[in-house]
Amino acid sequence: MKVRKTTRDAAWLEVALSDTAALLSDHAHCEKKAASSAISLIARYPEASSMVTALAALAHEELEHFAEVHAALLTRGGVLGVDVGDPYVQRLVKLAKGETRAERIADRLLISALVEARSFERLALLGERHPDPALAEMFARFARTEAQHGALFVGLAREHGPSREHVDARLAELLDREHAIIESHPLRCAIH
Amino acid sequence: MKVRKTTRDAAWLEVALSDTAALLSDHAHCEKKAASSAISLIARYPEASSMVTALAALAHEELEHFAEVHAALLTRGGVLGVDVGDPYVQRLVKLAKGETRAERIADRLLISALVEARSFERLALLGERHPDPALAEMFARFARTEAQHGALFVGLAREHGPSREHVDARLAELLDREHAIIESHPLRCAIH
Repeated sequence: MKVRKTTRDAAWLEVALSDTAALLSDHAHCEKKAASSAISLIARYPEASSMVTALAALAHEELEHFAEVHAALLTRGGVLGVDVGDPYVQRLVKLAKGETRAERIADRLLISALVEARSFERLALLGERHPDPALAEMFARFARTEAQHGALFVGLAREHGPSREHVDARLAELLDREHAIIESHPLRCAIH
Repeated sequence: MKVRKTTRDAAWLEVALSDTAALLSDHAHCEKKAASSAISLIARYPEASSMVTALAALAHEELEHFAEVHAALLTRGGVLGVDVGDPYVQRLVKLAKGETRAERIADRLLISALVEARSFERLALLGERHPDPALAEMFARFARTEAQHGALFVGLAREHGPSREHVDARLAELLDREHAIIESHPLRCAIH
C-alpha cells in the first residue's frame, strides 16, 4: 500500500534539510509515538491475540529506532526537544469513525497504516537526499521498515475489521483524505 | 535497593498460584505498563539525555518481556485479559510530590524503583515456587532484570534529583510508605 505522491516533496525537503537537529528530534518523537500507539492498541484490544503479538514486535522495533535516532542526535551535538505534537497525525486521527467495534478497529489500524506509508515516502526521500551519509543510510533503512509496518497494519485491518470489502473501501477513502491533508499541511522541519 | 519483606508473602503466593492464566495476563500488563511509563518519562523530560537513553533501553527490554509473557499465556491456552488497573501502583503513584522540577523527577523515578523492587520480590518467589518449570525459569530470569531496573531508577533519581541527600531521605520515606501499602493491600492473583 502506498500513499499518493504530493506536489510538495521538494518544498518539504528544503525545509526538512534546514535543521538536522530539529529533524532528528521530531523523527525520534515519531518513533516513540509509534511505539506508544501500538501499546495503546494492545491495551484496547487485548483479546485479539495475533494483533497483540504483531503490535508488540512493532513497538519493540520502533523503540529500537527511537534509540538509534536519539543517539544520532546526541552524536551531532543535539538534544531531544519537547514534543510539540504532529498536526498531520492529529488531523488523520480525527478521521477515525465506526459504528461497530470491528469498524473502529479497522479505522484505527488503517490510519496507522497511512502514517507509516507517508513516513516511508518522507524517510525514503531523506535517504536519497540527506547530505550526511550516515543519516542518509539510517533514513533509507528505516524507510524500508515503515513500508513493512504499513503493509502489516493493512493486513491487521483486513483480519480484524468487519470484511475485506469494507476495509478496502475505507482505505481508498482514507487515502484520498490523507492526500488532501498532506497537500494542505504547513511545511515543517519534521517527518510530516 | 530492596523493599522490606512483608508478612503476607505466603498468603499472596497461594492466591497468585491459583490461576496461571490470570497471573500471566496481569504480568504481561505490568511489563507493558512499565514500558509505557518509561516512554512517558522520556516525553516529559526529553532534554535529560542520559535518562532518555537509559529509559529507552529499559522500555525496549520491558516490551521483550511483554512479548515473552504473552506468548507463554497463549501457549497455555490463555488470552490477554482487559487491564483492570493495578491498585498497588495507583496508590504508590499518588505519593509523588515535589516543589521543584528536580524533586518531582526524583519522586517519579523513586516510585518506579519501588515498583521494580517489589516486582523483583514477587517474581523471585514465583521463580522459586511456581509448579510449571518453564514459567518458574522465566519468572526467576525476569526477577533479576527487575532488580537491575530498580537500581537503575535509584541511580537516575540521584543523577537527576536535587541532591543525593534529598533522594536518599525521600527513598527511605517512600520505602516505609510502600511497605504500609503492600501490607494493607488486597491479595490478588496478580504480581502486586
